[in-house]
Amino acid sequence: MLEEREITIYDIAKYLNISAATVSRGLKNNPMISKATRKKIMDAAQVLGYQSNAFASNLRSRQTHTLGVIVPRLNSYFMSSALAGMENAANRYGYNLIIAQSLEDAEKEKRNAATMFNKRVDGLLISLSSNTQNINHLEPFFKRKIPVIFFDRVYPHNESTSVGINNFEAAYQVTKHLIDQGCKRILHLGGNVLRNVYQERLNGYRKALQDHHLSFSDKLHLTGPLSEQAGTDAARHILELAPNKRPDAVFSANDTAAVYCMLALQAAGLRIPEDIAFAGFNNDPISKVIAPNLTTVEYHGDSIGHTAATYLINHLKGISDLYATNAITLRADLVIRASSLKNKNPE
Amino acid sequence: MLEEREITIYDIAKYLNISAATVSRGLKNNPMISKATRKKIMDAAQVLGYQSNAFASNLRSRQTHTLGVIVPRLNSYFMSSALAGMENAANRYGYNLIIAQSLEDAEKEKRNAATMFNKRVDGLLISLSSNTQNINHLEPFFKRKIPVIFFDRVYPHNESTSVGINNFEAAYQVTKHLIDQGCKRILHLGGNVLRNVYQERLNGYRKALQDHHLSFSDKLHLTGPLSEQAGTDAARHILELAPNKRPDAVFSANDTAAVYCMLALQAAGLRIPEDIAFAGFNNDPISKVIAPNLTTVEYHGDSIGHTAATYLINHLKGISDLYATNAITLRADLVIRASSLKNKNPE
Repeated sequence: MLEEREITIYDIAKYLNISAATVSRGLKNNPMISKATRKKIMDAAQVLGYQSNAFASNLRSRQTHTLGVIVPRLNSYFMSSALAGMENAANRYGYNLIIAQSLEDAEKEKRNAATMFNKRVDGLLISLSSNTQNINHLEPFFKRKIPVIFFDRVYPHNESTSVGINNFEAAYQVTKHLIDQGCKRILHLGGNVLRNVYQERLNGYRKALQDHHLSFSDKLHLTGPLSEQAGTDAARHILELAPNKRPDAVFSANDTAAVYCMLALQAAGLRIPEDIAFAGFNNDPISKVIAPNLTTVEYHGDSIGHTAATYLINHLKGISDLYATNAITLRADLVIRASSLKNKNPE
Repeated sequence: MLEEREITIYDIAKYLNISAATVSRGLKNNPMISKATRKKIMDAAQVLGYQSNAFASNLRSRQTHTLGVIVPRLNSYFMSSALAGMENAANRYGYNLIIAQSLEDAEKEKRNAATMFNKRVDGLLISLSSNTQNINHLEPFFKRKIPVIFFDRVYPHNESTSVGINNFEAAYQVTKHLIDQGCKRILHLGGNVLRNVYQERLNGYRKALQDHHLSFSDKLHLTGPLSEQAGTDAARHILELAPNKRPDAVFSANDTAAVYCMLALQAAGLRIPEDIAFAGFNNDPISKVIAPNLTTVEYHGDSIGHTAATYLINHLKGISDLYATNAITLRADLVIRASSLKNKNPE
C-alpha cells in the first residue's frame, strides 16, 4: 500500500518559518503561544495533514480515552438507543467507544472482553449475553482496577456499578394492571432467568399474583429468546390449549415477542384485548404501531447508556468514585395502551 | 486511582520457572515452542492478568487494527443492522470498530472524522449526515492513503469505494408498482436531496412517472427529515387538500415516515389502500406490524455493513485493491404487501 511520508512538527515549523518548539507548544494549545500563532499552527497542521501521535501519548499517560462496550446484539432497538446515549456522553468528554457484540454467546463475550483488555480501554460498559454463567472473564479488568459498569443485564459485583431499572417493580405494576382489568389467567412470556432482568421480571409477576390471591402455574410461564419466532410459538402454544384453559392475558418480557404473539392470535381470530389482553416491555417503536397499541414499560435506552457512560467517565476523571456506588436505578414507567384495556374505566 | 503494578513477561517466566525469551515466543504463538508449553504460557498470562502491549506493537507495525465508523444516527434500524454486519466481519478478522454518530450535523461529522484520524484508524467507513456539503473533512485520510468506504449515503470520489443499492431502480420499481395498481396522483415523501440516496429515489420516481405519461408536480413532492413527525405532518398536508386534489398513493423514502403518515390518515377515517395506497423503503420491523402491512424495499443493512467492512479489511490485508473499485451495488427487492394492493389481481 502506497503511503506518503508522515508529516512531523518539523514540517509545520518549516512551512510557517517558526521553531519546532513553538509548533509543539501551539499544538498542545499552550497559552505561552499567542492565540493567533496557535490558530496559524492548527491551520497549517490541517493543511499539511499532520496526525497527532495519539498512541505515543497514550503510552506516556497510560490512558487511551477509549471505552469498551459489549452488548448482546447491536441490532435491537433498546441496545442501539443505549449506544446512542453512550456516544453522546463519550463524545462530549473526548472519549471514543470501541464496540463489540456477543451475539448472546458467552464464548464470544469472553473473546470480546479479552480484546477490549488488550486494547487497553480505560473502562468497560457491558450488558451480558443470555447464557453467560459467571464473570470470570472480567477478572483481568478487576485485577488491574479498570472500571467495569454493567448496564441492563447486570451481575452482582462488589467493585462494579450496575445501571438499570427496577425490573421487579415494573413487572409488578404491569401484572397488577392486568389483574385490575379483571384478568385472572395471566401468561408470562419470559427470557433466560440467568439474566437478572428476566429473573426479576418473573419475580415481580409472581409477587403481584400472590398479593392478589392468584396462583402461579408453570403452564402459564414460557421462557425463550423473546424473538419474533418465540412470540409466534407462544401463540401456537396458546391456540393448542382448550379454550377454557387459555390465558386471558399475556405479559411478555419484551415488545417483540408480545407483538408477534398478538399478530398470530389475531390471524387465528382472537380479539385483543377482549379475548386476551397484552402487555410488553421496552416501549419499542413497534408497540405504537401494532393495532391495538401495546401496553408496555417505557425503558429509556438512551438514558441508561448516557448515565452509564457519564458515570464511568466521571470516575476516570476523578470526579466521582465508582467503587462507592453499587447500583444506579433509573425511572421506568408503565405506559397503558389499548391492548390491555378490557375494563374501559380502569379502577 | 489505585492500580496494581503491571504484569510483565518476566513475571510469567518466574511463575512458570522458564526463560523470558520462551515466554515471549510462546505469547507470539511461535511454533519453536511446544504446543503444551504455549498453552501453559497462555494460561499463566490469563491467571496473572498479563496485558499484551497493543499500543507498543501498533507503534511498530503502524497498524491499529481498528476501523472507524461514522453514521448519521446510531438508533435507526437500518444503521444498527449495518453496524451489526460490520462487527461480524471485523470480529472475524481481528479488527475492532470505533464508532461515532454525526446526529445529522456536518460540523459534528467533521469533529468525528478528526478524532478517527488522530486515533489512527486503519480505515474509515462513513455514511454522510443529511446536511454535509462536501468531503473536505476527509482530505487528511485521502492524503495519508487511509482507505475510506462510503456506505448507504455515499459521495462520488475517485479514491474511495461506495457500497449501497441502486436507489434509482428501486424507486422506479416502487413507483411503477403503484402505477400498475391504478394510482395516478402519487405523492413522494423524500429526504434531503443533498444525499444521493434521496436524490436517486426522487429521480427513479420521476422517471417512472414520465415513462407512464404521468406528470410530475411540485405539489406532490414533500421533503423533510423522514421522522415520525414528518410522517404525521405529511398526513396533515394531505388532509388539508380538497378531496379531489388528494394523492391516491404515497411513496415515502423510508418506512418510519410512511407508517406515521398512515396512522394519522387512518385516524382521520381514510382507508388504506382503497382511498390511498402506501409504499415505504427499508423494510423496517414496523412495516410488518402496521395494518395493513406496508409495501417497501428490502434494504439489507447487515449485508451492506458486512460487505463494506469485509472489503475494507481485504484491502488492508492486500487481498483486493479498493482503489480499483468505485462502487459495489447490492440487491434490493420490492416487497409487495397489502398497503398498496388496490388491484387484488396485480398485472
